[in-house]
This record gives sequence, structure tokens and C-alpha cells, in this order.
Amino acid sequence: MSAIDYARSQHVRFLLELKDFLRIPSISALPEHKSDMVTAAEFLRAELLRIGMENVQLIETEGEPLVYADWLHAAGSPTCLFYGHYDVQPTDPIEEWESPPFEPAEQHGNLYARGASDDKGQLYIHIKALESLLHENSGKLPINVRLLMEGEEEVGGKHVSQFVREHSERLRSDFAVVSDTKMVRADIPSLYVGLRGIVYVEIEVNGPSVDLHSGIYGGNVRNPLMVLAQIISQLKDEKERVLIPGFYDSISDVSVGEKLSWQNIADEVVKALEDQSGVGLFGEEDFTPLERAWSRPTLDVHGIVGGFSGTGTKTVIPAKAVAKISMRIVPGMQPQEVLKQLTDFIHSRRPIGTSIEIREVYSSLPVLIDVQNVFTRSAADALERVFGNQVAFVRSGGSIPIVADFQDCLEIPTLMIGFGLPDDRTHAPNEKLSIDNFFKGIEAIILLLEDLRPSANA
Amino acid sequence: MSAIDYARSQHVRFLLELKDFLRIPSISALPEHKSDMVTAAEFLRAELLRIGMENVQLIETEGEPLVYADWLHAAGSPTCLFYGHYDVQPTDPIEEWESPPFEPAEQHGNLYARGASDDKGQLYIHIKALESLLHENSGKLPINVRLLMEGEEEVGGKHVSQFVREHSERLRSDFAVVSDTKMVRADIPSLYVGLRGIVYVEIEVNGPSVDLHSGIYGGNVRNPLMVLAQIISQLKDEKERVLIPGFYDSISDVSVGEKLSWQNIADEVVKALEDQSGVGLFGEEDFTPLERAWSRPTLDVHGIVGGFSGTGTKTVIPAKAVAKISMRIVPGMQPQEVLKQLTDFIHSRRPIGTSIEIREVYSSLPVLIDVQNVFTRSAADALERVFGNQVAFVRSGGSIPIVADFQDCLEIPTLMIGFGLPDDRTHAPNEKLSIDNFFKGIEAIILLLEDLRPSANA
Repeated sequence: MSAIDYARSQHVRFLLELKDFLRIPSISALPEHKSDMVTAAEFLRAELLRIGMENVQLIETEGEPLVYADWLHAAGSPTCLFYGHYDVQPTDPIEEWESPPFEPAEQHGNLYARGASDDKGQLYIHIKALESLLHENSGKLPINVRLLMEGEEEVGGKHVSQFVREHSERLRSDFAVVSDTKMVRADIPSLYVGLRGIVYVEIEVNGPSVDLHSGIYGGNVRNPLMVLAQIISQLKDEKERVLIPGFYDSISDVSVGEKLSWQNIADEVVKALEDQSGVGLFGEEDFTPLERAWSRPTLDVHGIVGGFSGTGTKTVIPAKAVAKISMRIVPGMQPQEVLKQLTDFIHSRRPIGTSIEIREVYSSLPVLIDVQNVFTRSAADALERVFGNQVAFVRSGGSIPIVADFQDCLEIPTLMIGFGLPDDRTHAPNEKLSIDNFFKGIEAIILLLEDLRPSANA
Repeated sequence: MSAIDYARSQHVRFLLELKDFLRIPSISALPEHKSDMVTAAEFLRAELLRIGMENVQLIETEGEPLVYADWLHAAGSPTCLFYGHYDVQPTDPIEEWESPPFEPAEQHGNLYARGASDDKGQLYIHIKALESLLHENSGKLPINVRLLMEGEEEVGGKHVSQFVREHSERLRSDFAVVSDTKMVRADIPSLYVGLRGIVYVEIEVNGPSVDLHSGIYGGNVRNPLMVLAQIISQLKDEKERVLIPGFYDSISDVSVGEKLSWQNIADEVVKALEDQSGVGLFGEEDFTPLERAWSRPTLDVHGIVGGFSGTGTKTVIPAKAVAKISMRIVPGMQPQEVLKQLTDFIHSRRPIGTSIEIREVYSSLPVLIDVQNVFTRSAADALERVFGNQVAFVRSGGSIPIVADFQDCLEIPTLMIGFGLPDDRTHAPNEKLSIDNFFKGIEAIILLLEDLRPSANA
């Protein structure tokens, strides 16, 4: 029997086991679920041991444990690093769930549960693909495999990032596979090949040594909130173009092939953006909404702190004002370069006599995966065979820090093969996973690994 | 014996009685002091009855009671309306008090207690002046007198303002006396003859129907915080000049006499401003710091609400953003006119496709008292006789809403005769009143009333 045939013969059991995994309420954001985090990690360890993976271990961190396993006996084959996360989002507002979030329920071909799509269900696809391959090949895999699973993705993923940075040799691989994204549409298998990076800063304007009464001081003291507004307003024009000199200078062009591939799905993606925002899309001239979302950098203000922001009124001139601002950056741009451009610009525009501090809070590199590399091509081929439709090479305007870490520290590309669907309601009540996609996902991963076995193409 | 002589003979008793009044912890901001508010009001009622005032009554409001009394038998004489407030500020930080705030302590010629200067001590000056006059004139006063005292000045004074608006006929008077301000210096008696008014608004910029993720939407949606910053930044230039068309057009000139009077005290006032702010004063070109504080209108941002302003980071494009802004306006300017100028300007600068709402939160008229009117002249004369120095005619950049109410609803001028000193630490620990000023204040009020008796100048 082939691994695919075996997987098909085990549908009922695979689904039952996924439900067991989903019943563990591993909510990383809530301290009262601390022991559930360990239960979920232990569940994965037991499962990986049972299916025949090696070096199975929980790696303690200052946060939740990492789960690691490998199988490295395919000499001359590439090594694949599977990543997933076993933690889930909180469930509130709980009253909006139609079935309990940790009692998986099947309906209309979907499995409803918190974590079904993000990311327990998708992570489980990898495990069941490996189980099928190991079972049908006398405990062997077609290529070398490592698995690394974390329990803090929904709360920032700090410790897995630290682990990757500190153990790049131990994790040495040729490519990574992350299934934590969504397909553009139920019939369009999608590979994410680009992510925006981010530079998050706080800009602080200092003024008087204490908050002052605006009746007594108004007209005689520079108001830090006003100075901050004047600075912020100079960062972007009314046509949404960022005015920081050099900001757009080092952007890599999107390849013609990638752009062509966007045409098929542009309407789909843009409509989804429009539907959820409740306002018309608006942005840089001469760029399509898809380009603005995926391949153009931008700048946003997230909050302004200072003075009085409660209900009612207070007539205060604040001693200081702080803006929380981030810039989304695209391939070709470097966080430190962007930070310097911003800092230089602000200091050049700073009113004489004002004191301004710019703090980098965090940053993450943009990601670009070569559509032509052998791994991407194999993944596209596997997806097309399973889904019977051409793969869309898409990007995300958001950031997936672990993928940037893999690119930056391990120097490997990541195949972001998502089996979620746009209506999966990840992070919201009634999260679900298409059961059909769960099974198709297992087959796609099996095909990908089989295709990458050196003899496969010999 | 003259009333003045009588007052002098009663110094010890007057001070003891003031201490009794100061022992009542009538903190209007703290609900646990609710019964103390009534105690303080009852204290005043008993006192006014005892000294021979008539129609003495507590007037219930939805907040703290008003205390009212009058004596209206001086046919052909003007009527004076005395205003004061019996509530005090909270005492925190309590550990910084060198003696308990409600155990009045005499030291270095001062009386230390919460409310000693603001405003129980100053209010008591009026009562002791009236007592002296009534005692020495067989229960008669030189002119007609009304007293109105409230217990909510430190929490907004909403109910006294409502009472004045609704009972202007009942309160009919020719001028008012408020002793709730400070002298420029211990040897310079000061009359406040100008107050800035205020127009407090909220400006709301609306964007997407819900907060959006800046990774997914950044570049495709106008950010309300950015639009708000762009609007705010256009309200004032970097030289602190307000850019709203017409804003400066209707300002009344400061009379030559008033300006001359400022010269003597400018250094004193400006130094106090500089010392407390911890920054160099900065404002409109071609105007002195004193003019900027007293006779020039201005605009300040007090807070900006929207998005994420907690500790840490969140990458949100907020659905809306609100700025709390006030304009201080000077004599000649009308709140509704200024509001219209602001609204028209913002709408003319609003980026196409954005939705902006401007809400008036409250406003208060500027106040200007004619230096040449008979009441002002009599007050100045009384002060100069008691303090032996020329009166300074000063202004405040802040607003005293009750004075604007008297001007607007009763159409009478208010003599703002303050006996506080710049270092009285009102609202702060170790508040005090100069005992010498307490006694001098009583004499000044006696002289003022005697001077306004028609026969006095006959």
C-alpha cells in the first residue's frame, strides 16, 4: 500500500486523534491554563514516539516547552524542518460559540474547535503525513526530517525565536515547512512566498518637567502632543505616501512571474479586504490594492500616549507625549536602515528647542521565497496534484517572525503551505477546519516528501 | 468704635473661629466626606445667623448645598454679591504635610491647613468683615449684601452655575466680590480684571468599522490617528501661532492704562511661570510672556485617544481617533464664533473621503472688568489704604466660570480681590494663609463697603 492509500484507510482514526488533541485547552495567554500547555506538549511527545520519530524531547524554556523530534537517516537527502504551534487563542466571547470550543464538533464537513485551523489541526497534518510514510516504509522517511513545535506563538513566540538563534547548527536543515496560513479560496491551493517585515518604534517628545495647567501656561509652553502631531503628520502625505527620504529606495522588484500569478487571485483577496474593513480601500497612487498590501512598505500610528485620555475633560499640557508607530517593510529593505532614515528625518524636522527620543521596540525582517527553488516547485506540484488546481503564489502584508528567523539564522527558505480557509475564523468564535483539507493536507505533505527523495527524480 | 477697630479687637476670636471652620474636612471630590460637606454648610449657616444676616438658608441641589444669606435694607445703595466656596481639595500626598491638614497650625505668621487659602480662609474674610460692620452699626450694613457659597468649586461647580442661570432675578446685584485668587507679591495688592474664556472640543476622525490589523491593512486604509495628527498639526504653526482663519480678528485691545500697570509686575509673574514649568517659555512672536498668558488666545491638545496606548505593542489601525483640544479665548472673542471658525477650518482641510465630527464639550466666556468703574476704583482704593502700596490690575490665563456666569447671567462685574500669596500651595501639601493677610483682608472689605455707601461720598 502507498503512504497515501494508508492515510486514506486511517481517516476515521486520524480525525479521532485530532479531536483528542483539540480537547486540551492550551491557551498560552491565560496563566490558569499553564498545566494544559504541558499536557499538549506531552501529547505531541507521545504521538511522535508512537509513530517512530527519534530524539523526541521536550525542551524547557523560560516559557512553554518546545517539542522536538527528528529522523535523519536519509543520507544524501535534503532535510526538512517542520514548524507548528500547539498553543491556541483565548475563547472569548465564549457565548458566541455554537459548540463548546474544546469539544470538537463535526458539521457541514468542518471540524469546529479552538485551534482546529490555528494551528493544532494544521500541525497535525504534518504528523499524520509522517506517520503514514513511516508506517508504509518500514519506519523510514523519504528525506531527513526535523520537527520543532512551540507553545507561545499566540503570545509573541519569544522563546522559540531565541532557541532558533542559539541552536542554528542543531537545527541545520535545507528548508522549512510551516502550515499556519490560509488558502486564497477553497479550490486554490496557496503558497506564501513573501511577508512584510516590521520596524516598531516609540517616538517620545519631552516638554515641561511636570504636567502644566493650560490656563496658566497655554501660549507660553510648547505642547509635546502638538509637537508630536506635527512630526507624525510629516511622515506621510495625504496620498498615503511615506515622506521619509530613502524609504522606497531599496525595494526589490516583484518578479514578472510572481506578478502574473497575482492576477488570478487579486479580486478574491481585495474583496476580502474590502468586506472586513467597512471602508473603501485607499492608498498609494499607481499601485494596486494587492501591491499596497503585499509588496509596498507603509507606516502606521497605533496609539498616542500623553496628557489626559479618560472620559471628560482636563486642561493639561503634558510633560511628554509618546507615539507608537510601526513601519511594514518589504524585501530589499533593512530594519536598521529604515530606523536610521526615520531617526534622521525626525531630527531634521524637530522644532528647535524640543527634545525627542526614538526607541526601537522590535523589528523583523521581510521574507521572500524564491518561487523557482526545488522545494517551492515540489510543494506547488504536490498541491496541484492533490487539489487539482493551479497553485497561487501569494504574500502576506503581515509578518511571521519564525519564518524571518529561519531565513535569517538558518538561512533556509520556508514553504508556507496553509490548509486553512478564509472563513476559518481563527482567533474568533466558532473556529473550524475543513475536514477535507485536513485529509488533502496529509496527502500533499506525503507527496512533497516523496518527491524530494533523491531517487524520486533519478 | 469703627468697624475696623472692632475687627482689630477681635483678632484672636476671628482666628479661633476660622480654625474651627478649617477643621471640617470638606473634601468635595471624595464621597466619604459627604457628611462633612453638610457640616461645613451648617457651620456657615449658624455663623451667618449669629452675625445678623437675614434669609439665611441652605439651598439643596443635586450636589452639595448652597449657602445663601442677604441683608437688603440699604435703600438707594448698590448691592454686593459675595461668592466663596466651602469645599477643599483632597490632601494627598498626605505624607508630605508637616502638620495634619485638618489641624490648623500657626507658624511664621501663617496658618497651615487644607483650605486655609483656597477658599475657606478667604471666604471667611468676607464674613468677618460683615460681622464687624453689623456689630458696629446696630445690625446694619453700609450697602446691600448677598452671600452665595457653594461646596463644589473643586469638582466643577456645576450646580452653582445652574442656580445662577436659573435665579438671576433672585440674585440681582450691582457687582460681585470673589476672593479666591492670589496677590502678585506679598506687598502688591492685586485685582484680577481679566480672565481667559475657554472652548473645549473633541475632534473625532472615523475610519474603518472595526480596528484592523496593520499587517493586513497597512497601506490600504486611511489611519484615523494619522488623519487626526495631520489635522491637529495644521491648527498651529511651529511659532505657536494659531492658523485658524479669523481666530485673532476680534480681540479687544488691552487698554494703555492696564498695560502700563503690567510693567511693574511682569518680571514677578514671568519668573513664577518659568520656575514651575522647568522649560524656557516659548510662544507667539511680538508678544511678551505676560501678554501670551493673559491677553492672547491659544490652543492646546490635552489628549489623543484611539488605538493602543498601553504598555507594549499592538499593531492596530484604529476604527476612530479622538483629540481633546481647548482654545483659551480673550475678551472680544465669542465661544460660538471660535467654534465655528475651528469647524469650518477643519472641514476645509479634511482629506476627501474622511469623516470628522467636532463636538463642543463646554465653553466659558472671557471676562474683562472695567478698571474705571466705581466698584473697581473703590476696591483699589481700599486695598491701597490697607496694604500701603499701589494695586496691580492683573489677569489670569485661566478661567473662573462663576465670574463668567456673573458677567453673562447677572450682567455685573466681579471684583476678584485675592488675599492669597503666590507661595500658598493651594491644591498641594502644606497649604497656608498669611494671618496678616487674613486681617488685612477683613479691613479691605470693610473699607470697600463703607466707601460704596452713597452718603460716604456725598
